[in-house]
Amino acid sequence: MTNKIDPYKYMKGFGNHFSSEALQDALPKGQNTPQKCPYGLYAEQLSGTAFTVDRKNNQRSWLYRIRPSVCHQPFTKLDSKSHHIANKFGIGDIHHIPNQIRWSPFNKLLLEDNKKTSNDIDFVHGLHTLAGAGDPTIKNGLAIHIYTANANMDNTAFYNSDGDFLIVPQHGRLDIITEFGCLMVASNEIVVIPRGIRYSINFPDGPSRGYVLEVFGNHFELPDLGPIGANGLANPRDFLTPVASFEEKECDYTIINKYAGQLFVSKQDHSPFDVVAWHGNYVPYKYDLGKFNTVNSVSFDHIDPSIFTVLTSKSAFPGTAIADFVIFPPRWAVQEHTFE
Amino acid sequence: MTNKIDPYKYMKGFGNHFSSEALQDALPKGQNTPQKCPYGLYAEQLSGTAFTVDRKNNQRSWLYRIRPSVCHQPFTKLDSKSHHIANKFGIGDIHHIPNQIRWSPFNKLLLEDNKKTSNDIDFVHGLHTLAGAGDPTIKNGLAIHIYTANANMDNTAFYNSDGDFLIVPQHGRLDIITEFGCLMVASNEIVVIPRGIRYSINFPDGPSRGYVLEVFGNHFELPDLGPIGANGLANPRDFLTPVASFEEKECDYTIINKYAGQLFVSKQDHSPFDVVAWHGNYVPYKYDLGKFNTVNSVSFDHIDPSIFTVLTSKSAFPGTAIADFVIFPPRWAVQEHTFE
Amino acid sequence: MTNKIDPYKYMKGFGNHFSSEALQDALPKGQNTPQKCPYGLYAEQLSGTAFTVDRKNNQRSWLYRIRPSVCHQPFTKLDSKSHHIANKFGIGDIHHIPNQIRWSPFNKLLLEDNKKTSNDIDFVHGLHTLAGAGDPTIKNGLAIHIYTANANMDNTAFYNSDGDFLIVPQHGRLDIITEFGCLMVASNEIVVIPRGIRYSINFPDGPSRGYVLEVFGNHFELPDLGPIGANGLANPRDFLTPVASFEEKECDYTIINKYAGQLFVSKQDHSPFDVVAWHGNYVPYKYDLGKFNTVNSVSFDHIDPSIFTVLTSKSAFPGTAIADFVIFPPRWAVQEHTFE
Amino acid sequence: MTNKIDPYKYMKGFGNHFSSEALQDALPKGQNTPQKCPYGLYAEQLSGTAFTVDRKNNQRSWLYRIRPSVCHQPFTKLDSKSHHIANKFGIGDIHHIPNQIRWSPFNKLLLEDNKKTSNDIDFVHGLHTLAGAGDPTIKNGLAIHIYTANANMDNTAFYNSDGDFLIVPQHGRLDIITEFGCLMVASNEIVVIPRGIRYSINFPDGPSRGYVLEVFGNHFELPDLGPIGANGLANPRDFLTPVASFEEKECDYTIINKYAGQLFVSKQDHSPFDVVAWHGNYVPYKYDLGKFNTVNSVSFDHIDPSIFTVLTSKSAFPGTAIADFVIFPPRWAVQEHTFE
Amino acid sequence: MTNKIDPYKYMKGFGNHFSSEALQDALPKGQNTPQKCPYGLYAEQLSGTAFTVDRKNNQRSWLYRIRPSVCHQPFTKLDSKSHHIANKFGIGDIHHIPNQIRWSPFNKLLLEDNKKTSNDIDFVHGLHTLAGAGDPTIKNGLAIHIYTANANMDNTAFYNSDGDFLIVPQHGRLDIITEFGCLMVASNEIVVIPRGIRYSINFPDGPSRGYVLEVFGNHFELPDLGPIGANGLANPRDFLTPVASFEEKECDYTIINKYAGQLFVSKQDHSPFDVVAWHGNYVPYKYDLGKFNTVNSVSFDHIDPSIFTVLTSKSAFPGTAIADFVIFPPRWAVQEHTFE
Amino acid sequence: MTNKIDPYKYMKGFGNHFSSEALQDALPKGQNTPQKCPYGLYAEQLSGTAFTVDRKNNQRSWLYRIRPSVCHQPFTKLDSKSHHIANKFGIGDIHHIPNQIRWSPFNKLLLEDNKKTSNDIDFVHGLHTLAGAGDPTIKNGLAIHIYTANANMDNTAFYNSDGDFLIVPQHGRLDIITEFGCLMVASNEIVVIPRGIRYSINFPDGPSRGYVLEVFGNHFELPDLGPIGANGLANPRDFLTPVASFEEKECDYTIINKYAGQLFVSKQDHSPFDVVAWHGNYVPYKYDLGKFNTVNSVSFDHIDPSIFTVLTSKSAFPGTAIADFVIFPPRWAVQEHTFE
Repeated sequence: MTNKIDPYKYMKGFGNHFSSEALQDALPKGQNTPQKCPYGLYAEQLSGTAFTVDRKNNQRSWLYRIRPSVCHQPFTKLDSKSHHIANKFGIGDIHHIPNQIRWSPFNKLLLEDNKKTSNDIDFVHGLHTLAGAGDPTIKNGLAIHIYTANANMDNTAFYNSDGDFLIVPQHGRLDIITEFGCLMVASNEIVVIPRGIRYSINFPDGPSRGYVLEVFGNHFELPDLGPIGANGLANPRDFLTPVASFEEKECDYTIINKYAGQLFVSKQDHSPFDVVAWHGNYVPYKYDLGKFNTVNSVSFDHIDPSIFTVLTSKSAFPGTAIADFVIFPPRWAVQEHTFE
Repeated sequence: MTNKIDPYKYMKGFGNHFSSEALQDALPKGQNTPQKCPYGLYAEQLSGTAFTVDRKNNQRSWLYRIRPSVCHQPFTKLDSKSHHIANKFGIGDIHHIPNQIRWSPFNKLLLEDNKKTSNDIDFVHGLHTLAGAGDPTIKNGLAIHIYTANANMDNTAFYNSDGDFLIVPQHGRLDIITEFGCLMVASNEIVVIPRGIRYSINFPDGPSRGYVLEVFGNHFELPDLGPIGANGLANPRDFLTPVASFEEKECDYTIINKYAGQLFVSKQDHSPFDVVAWHGNYVPYKYDLGKFNTVNSVSFDHIDPSIFTVLTSKSAFPGTAIADFVIFPPRWAVQEHTFE
Repeated sequence: MTNKIDPYKYMKGFGNHFSSEALQDALPKGQNTPQKCPYGLYAEQLSGTAFTVDRKNNQRSWLYRIRPSVCHQPFTKLDSKSHHIANKFGIGDIHHIPNQIRWSPFNKLLLEDNKKTSNDIDFVHGLHTLAGAGDPTIKNGLAIHIYTANANMDNTAFYNSDGDFLIVPQHGRLDIITEFGCLMVASNEIVVIPRGIRYSINFPDGPSRGYVLEVFGNHFELPDLGPIGANGLANPRDFLTPVASFEEKECDYTIINKYAGQLFVSKQDHSPFDVVAWHGNYVPYKYDLGKFNTVNSVSFDHIDPSIFTVLTSKSAFPGTAIADFVIFPPRWAVQEHTFE
Repeated sequence: MTNKIDPYKYMKGFGNHFSSEALQDALPKGQNTPQKCPYGLYAEQLSGTAFTVDRKNNQRSWLYRIRPSVCHQPFTKLDSKSHHIANKFGIGDIHHIPNQIRWSPFNKLLLEDNKKTSNDIDFVHGLHTLAGAGDPTIKNGLAIHIYTANANMDNTAFYNSDGDFLIVPQHGRLDIITEFGCLMVASNEIVVIPRGIRYSINFPDGPSRGYVLEVFGNHFELPDLGPIGANGLANPRDFLTPVASFEEKECDYTIINKYAGQLFVSKQDHSPFDVVAWHGNYVPYKYDLGKFNTVNSVSFDHIDPSIFTVLTSKSAFPGTAIADFVIFPPRWAVQEHTFE
Repeated sequence: MTNKIDPYKYMKGFGNHFSSEALQDALPKGQNTPQKCPYGLYAEQLSGTAFTVDRKNNQRSWLYRIRPSVCHQPFTKLDSKSHHIANKFGIGDIHHIPNQIRWSPFNKLLLEDNKKTSNDIDFVHGLHTLAGAGDPTIKNGLAIHIYTANANMDNTAFYNSDGDFLIVPQHGRLDIITEFGCLMVASNEIVVIPRGIRYSINFPDGPSRGYVLEVFGNHFELPDLGPIGANGLANPRDFLTPVASFEEKECDYTIINKYAGQLFVSKQDHSPFDVVAWHGNYVPYKYDLGKFNTVNSVSFDHIDPSIFTVLTSKSAFPGTAIADFVIFPPRWAVQEHTFE
Repeated sequence: MTNKIDPYKYMKGFGNHFSSEALQDALPKGQNTPQKCPYGLYAEQLSGTAFTVDRKNNQRSWLYRIRPSVCHQPFTKLDSKSHHIANKFGIGDIHHIPNQIRWSPFNKLLLEDNKKTSNDIDFVHGLHTLAGAGDPTIKNGLAIHIYTANANMDNTAFYNSDGDFLIVPQHGRLDIITEFGCLMVASNEIVVIPRGIRYSINFPDGPSRGYVLEVFGNHFELPDLGPIGANGLANPRDFLTPVASFEEKECDYTIINKYAGQLFVSKQDHSPFDVVAWHGNYVPYKYDLGKFNTVNSVSFDHIDPSIFTVLTSKSAFPGTAIADFVIFPPRWAVQEHTFE
């Protein structure tokens, strides 16, 4: 089978129940697990939430692929010296300090440091954990990483079992191949790849760097708007999800898994990006920060920075987030008699 | 301008943030109310919920149309004798009786009765209220109507300010033109047209009849599934919403409005179906009941009929609906040792 | 006893547990109902909510007064022709019409009309109901009144058992004597007098007019702010509540009560404004609309008018208000590429 | 079949899932609707809540009876002059008055009044509505009745479709036969018979009188205790529910139904009290007010009367009840320095 | 005193407020802590939840016993080498691995292994922890243990302060003596013993093995059923709780306590199973898995395995459990066109 | 500038939006961040909750000070041997033991012990952690400390980033200078200083000792009262918050910060107690335990000790606190037939 659709097309909307087919009629009609799927595909459900979560918060997708995703060798653990991902954030595990910190540009230092050990640093090996709190094994907390890398993930795919990755490219575009299709993510865009979705990142612009916000608990969602009403901040229709796109490729393929803050590796004999069609609401997506509808005081005084929230990951306490992704976009400042 | 797209196409998904354009690039990019909309269209927001309802329950759509919808003459009230819609359901207003009632076939009787007063009965004049509870002016309650009609709504549009209409055609298809596009609704399908959306119904199969469930409070939604999990009963991707479709037509047009249980009429000089593009999640939709995934006991005993709920309208008390739309689909009955 | 404090002083804050004494040490210390109150006062609790409402929403005040408030003759019903307050808002009770309505200036017409029947129209007799929904006897709904009056309420006090009054003076200041103290309310200010509090309104500027929003259910409160954060819109410290102030006056006093949408009258031999001290969080308050911190888009597009909400009365459905009091204050409009 | 168990035995506990058999093994084992029930009984479910209410609030019972309960003639409406039950409580329907009312002893007056029309007044015909609010057709509100009667309900059963009856006998015991078994209710006891349960009341002590509190919405439940903790006020184990008890009796039987505030009557040829066994948590129960564990201030000041709540019927607003049943039991009053 | 009742009788119902007496009238009437209890017993409350948890979720029982339970020597910690219970489940504490694991039969290996150190392995010493997450000291998480044992707990009792034990006997019945009475648990049955309840397990069938699911947070409860309605899955009346049963025995008795994942031991001079009567809703219970009412698709497609949930322990996020106990019972599979 | 007001005055109320000025008109009018504050002060917001917490639970204050609080040198970590504060409470970190513990008088021992290392022990260095659970880095849990000290905190201020301190002086008054003003706390009083507020403690009575309850999650609040109603237990008006009070002092000043359970130190050249005015609802407060309104059974039986709760810190599970502060005040015990 061959994919004939331009893979860099997107569907609009946040939280939609999407349907996408790279080959016509590849989705079963009116049911999810027919005895015989179109094109002889295998049906698999990918759950983003507990099955029993209520309708408005339940997330899952159905993927129809050429080979079952379980066809791989067992995972083995990677030596923790082979990467720079931290996994424990308790007292004593990391260096807690009450000083406010602004990071000076990492990239130079890190690239040099990386070059000492390897000429080719891909996205996964280019990840360095900066900070964190909580613990992925109890589904509570967050981590902040940077990446600085210069190599594509050839015949290698990554997925994170610990949390969602919100990636902010700082320098260099990201060309991301996922099980759901392809995303080209430019500067001033962000991309979210939820827990459990496999992907490869290539760097079409050469050596690249950027930031990653990882949340271990609830998925990112749009913040409630309160009195702002039905529109404003990041609008749902500006979020873009890829269309189905697949490759049927037999080769040695490496799957790297981040699980309990550790890396594991497995081998398989074919590309994992063999999903010919899918439907569901558990998907990767990108967003152009330039489309953010900025709201602020138009009379006097400053408004708290929560007014610039793009995405949030909720805690068990209403109104208190595990993490907010907040931007400071260009905007008109028109307050009167107000301190700058 | 002329609509060039097949109007009887549909988009899949329940509660999606859809975007649809009958003319290319008719939707403004990245914002809702530009100073100058594409094609010189007028932007209008149609709110399905209070502005301040939380993100997961907020419903609204943006319509981009040739003429503003407020360009019409004032509404005047229709004589209550000219129609058969009841509007009060209190004690003394209607005939309460504790006997269980099954209706014998209405259609014959009513058609005859209608014929006495008119040869041409359209959908609105063919509505007869059977039962009800509560009151649309306090946004609480429901009404059940039947319709029996034989005439199209030529140059006439209807909208209901009191509640959502869930229409079940019993005999004869419904060809529905709405501000959001066109729906052809066949037998064994249902269609929901929420409060405030204008539409005309034609009967391509001649004299037709069916049922209407009207809810005054919360909109219809898919029921929470509890232990059934992420799939089952009516699946979200089987709900179909029309694509944008418009007509640019100058003529005498009649708008009928149901408001506080009464009918009002207004005239305007153009078709209201001039929406060239729209986006949002407050939309009409149809559903093929044959796609219902039926769940039941596979061991013994009967399960309560709530297991057959297609759509529900929630009350202020969790788990207690204002109205459930429930079907009894064909299914396997495999319980053992269980009374039939 | 004589009140020696300037009565037109105010305490700041919304929802505070205030304490106020017109005579020193008139409040009992550390308890509410001592066997013998200071100055021989009578302790009375005025409940604004059910006793069992949770701490954050519970409202009540303790009043320490010269004579018990129950010392009055029984109430008798006033003829409904003697006033202009409507009490039923169902279908058939009022004139429902789907046209949008803007009121032309009432005052002239009404003053003339009033003059025909009386030269002296006080606040209560100057009330005319414009619109409403729901029913005070089931604590659900609202009414909108205007007042147009030219006479002070000499030796007459009013209280409303049906709901809270939010009064917007349009022309002429309001000099309000309440059981909790005195409020002078100017143009561009609003005042809220909750259910059950007795007050007299005088018109220091002569013939006056204005608007009244009455809510039958939950009390007015500040809206939740969502992403706006901890400050903005109407800020709590700008709400002003009077200090205790009393008169010890024996005379024929008339008490008018609005109950179930009807007026009742009772006589007593002393002023009801004999509260020497009080404490609690169920109080009247005023607010200067000029202090509203206006928030809006500072990039593009219009924001829904909920962004201008000053006070809200919540329904049983989160995010859906029974009534919002919304203003359109002067503000900077800086959106780009946005339709005016 | 003959009932051989003493019918005036009770099971302890509030909200329990009870099981009771008047004949051994009359309940089906491990299922509810076997193809063939023990003794050839008919299985019927009686729902106290919507099917979909969550587990902790869901109420239903299964009754196993000799004849199906639907075996009766259609209901016909009783002339409203034949009884003294009011059904409308809106403005204009009843006499609203803000004066506090304490009722002088009704019984004498009413008995005389009753005697004029009949020598034999049973419980249903002896009911006189005193007050009310809301409306049973929208499941919101309450009514207060008194009864004054001197005749047993021979071969007559009553059930109320509008709400639950909480009956307080003031003079004379109540001997109540219900579908779930028998209750003897003495003075200082109360009994609750939920919506839809059929029963007959006899007066073993001759002419009797008492009060009835009817709630149209949520069932009565024990109030949450807050800081009082896990014990106190009315303790769950002091509520008594009857054991199954039945009669197999063929005769002319009259069923009276209160529905939408009106009375309807139907005939059948056998006793409705033919339930041989039942299980479930939707049941009638009685409570001895002498077992109330009274809590109050033991330091100073009075506590609000909510501290004496025995049972409550919740509204949609947390902490605000539709109706509370409150008693003022004998108790130690030990507050210091506190006004009596 | 001597217990005269057959101890292997059970009371039906889940979450009931039970009352049980091994000697007649051993429960105090109408109160919990009389000055002098019947038979001179000591009253003790055993709390299953915080005192202030709301009525529907509050759990506690009152036990009336011959000697106070505090009459024991201080606890001392057992050497961690003397048992096989793990207590830390963080990263680095246990071996996390993303491979799916199915356990091969443990029992043989473990029995042999056990035999090396001891011929007599009782339930507590036969416990081996397989997996876990979270931490009992913050009341969040779970552990999975197996047991493989061949010796009775003579004059030894165990209680777990960390969480509830749900025990699934795989081979050999469990004869459990608890403070609340005795339970005989056969294969295909499960038993739950909540936190803080003391018990001894004997193995009437000789060497035995099985599984234990321990939850550190909320107690097990029946899952909400959503659209399944008021019946289905595990029905409340099929859960069995023992009747009161006691022994008055003076002897050396060993009490083993699991606390913070460690074992502690204390000595006392009498049997702890001296509870003559008890009442309350915090109890041990057993359930026959054969009574599970299995629900599934009866049309097409597979339903998520949550449909087979017997008991659940809720997290702070609605719909997301800490642990679900799920079974795959025999059932009819009648879906059409569905992949097996 | 010089402070001219008696600093040991207090404002009444719990959770109020207070306003306080040590110099007249030092608070900006009608806004928070004017371009130029009165007296040239700097405006700073101190957040007690996430910005987006709902209105009823949102806590923040605005402080207007002489110098910005960020004018200090970076923090450096103190050697853990220099203090006695524990920061890890997991299994293995502390000594868990199931025995009930009552502490014998610490003070003697500790003072002696302290004396060995230093003659001058201030509040911070006199803190000894007794017990704890959870972890401040995940905002969950609590710690219990005692303090025993004999030295004032001269030119030294402390603040805790981990949680709120509820301090119970056992011997010796506390003279506390905070950013919000001064509190003198005597025996039988408690004081709460929330997270992030800087303060110094002096001991006017010489060597002193007491207890500290620290909560890492939600702030302390008054418990909901349930049926107790609108008054009782600790009444809101008995909580006292200081009035603004400042010193303008240039000197070497030491700031000690507790962060992630560790101590950090920073130097600055002026007193941090330079807040001339402030407004807000995030404040320190004290309470006289003698004003507690004690409620208890006045009939029979004991009530659970939750009835004596003064303040509570809520967990994510309703009704289950992270920590309750409970007292056993003198009270009348009037239960009948009840075990002492």
